[in-house]
Amino acid sequence: MFQVPKSHPRYESLIKREKLAEGVRAGITSFQGLIAHGRGEAFDYLIGERTLPPALNATKTAVAMLLLAERPVLSVNGNVAALVPSGIVELSRFLDAPLEINIFYRTEERVRRIKEHLLRHGAPEEKVLGDKPDALIPGLEHARAKATRRGIYSADVVLTPLEDGDRCEALVRMGKRVIAIDLNPLSRTARAATVTVVDDLTRAVNNMIRLAAELKEASRGELEKFVETFDNRGNLQSVLKIIAERLTQLDIIELD
Amino acid sequence: MFQVPKSHPRYESLIKREKLAEGVRAGITSFQGLIAHGRGEAFDYLIGERTLPPALNATKTAVAMLLLAERPVLSVNGNVAALVPSGIVELSRFLDAPLEINIFYRTEERVRRIKEHLLRHGAPEEKVLGDKPDALIPGLEHARAKATRRGIYSADVVLTPLEDGDRCEALVRMGKRVIAIDLNPLSRTARAATVTVVDDLTRAVNNMIRLAAELKEASRGELEKFVETFDNRGNLQSVLKIIAERLTQLDIIELD
Repeated sequence: MFQVPKSHPRYESLIKREKLAEGVRAGITSFQGLIAHGRGEAFDYLIGERTLPPALNATKTAVAMLLLAERPVLSVNGNVAALVPSGIVELSRFLDAPLEINIFYRTEERVRRIKEHLLRHGAPEEKVLGDKPDALIPGLEHARAKATRRGIYSADVVLTPLEDGDRCEALVRMGKRVIAIDLNPLSRTARAATVTVVDDLTRAVNNMIRLAAELKEASRGELEKFVETFDNRGNLQSVLKIIAERLTQLDIIELD
Repeated sequence: MFQVPKSHPRYESLIKREKLAEGVRAGITSFQGLIAHGRGEAFDYLIGERTLPPALNATKTAVAMLLLAERPVLSVNGNVAALVPSGIVELSRFLDAPLEINIFYRTEERVRRIKEHLLRHGAPEEKVLGDKPDALIPGLEHARAKATRRGIYSADVVLTPLEDGDRCEALVRMGKRVIAIDLNPLSRTARAATVTVVDDLTRAVNNMIRLAAELKEASRGELEKFVETFDNRGNLQSVLKIIAERLTQLDIIELD
């Protein structure tokens, strides 16, 4: 991997790019995943590259929902595997939720490589699903519909970081609670999900791990209250308002 | 190339992604170029995927500047070569301006492949520079400083679509008029350039070709007036205002 000096003002951002480039070279991440990451970078720039209060609120709700779930599943694609392999494995262990590999441009080779990558990052073999799909999500074309009966197909709550709109909508239609992590508050995924965390993937997964530890002590009633009082559309509108206000206040001349 | 049906609502956008993926496979475009394209996609989405009035104004100024130039040069990187090879060659012919290959992650192999790609798209060999750099732009590290004496190094006006901030600033410091095409109105490049066209590369190059034909009939005085009355910072601020207003008016619920 290309060495980025820690002192570089864009260190965090450059490291993420390098991890994804490394992911492509390792056959884990797709070219489309790189473009999608770029879109995320632009939105992250607009929110100031930090976790906004509404995003933290959504993250807390998401964690409560996962802790309350009977069959929680964490979906993993090529960008998740490249960017936060240890984090997603840790979250999976903490929630006792399996990981299911679920990629947009599916090739069995890429699924296999992502699985190996997760195993290398400490995931137990029986907790990594997706390489032997045995069910189809209704309303999607065949390759995109593939799912696992023990995993996403039967889950009540699915965390799908960086999911595409069609699949997110199809999972919601199946009656599942879908948690999306998506930096674009206007995307179809963001609008279709039950809970949308408008935050960078790495920051969001780190926050989830921290909050899962905190909320594990909470009562069922407290967790349910988080979930019931959450309004996803209202939350997205708050994020949009923050971006618009930031842009209105920005003065091109004062940026120097 | 993956076939995208023309009827697809995101046809234009998907075709651009496919051209870039093809560019990577052909050794023309870098992984970083894919991420940069994603950033552009997000900003294009925010401006509504159309040429805004201030962008058209900037494009007209840019064309006037290029027509007035004594030594205009068009800079070409891996994304320009993949996305608008015919367009940039046509603009070069129309303005009688050489093309200079100028890439951020420079390898001689990639420069050679971009050159071949431009030749296949009709560029005359003597009009494609950059493979034999013989000068250094002051203030940049060696690999990024490479330029050609017959081209960018001696140019009075340089069109640098998708240029990075450091190099854009260095060219301005040399006293050149720099025209940038950059969808992020807040980027260092956008703020440092003499004229910034906040528009999608394909739309901007098509507009430039059309406007070059129109303005070729204009008098020197008319062209000079365009250039003298243009305020780049004010123009960028107008774009920012349009984005902020759009976001303020957007209602998450009404988007469905």
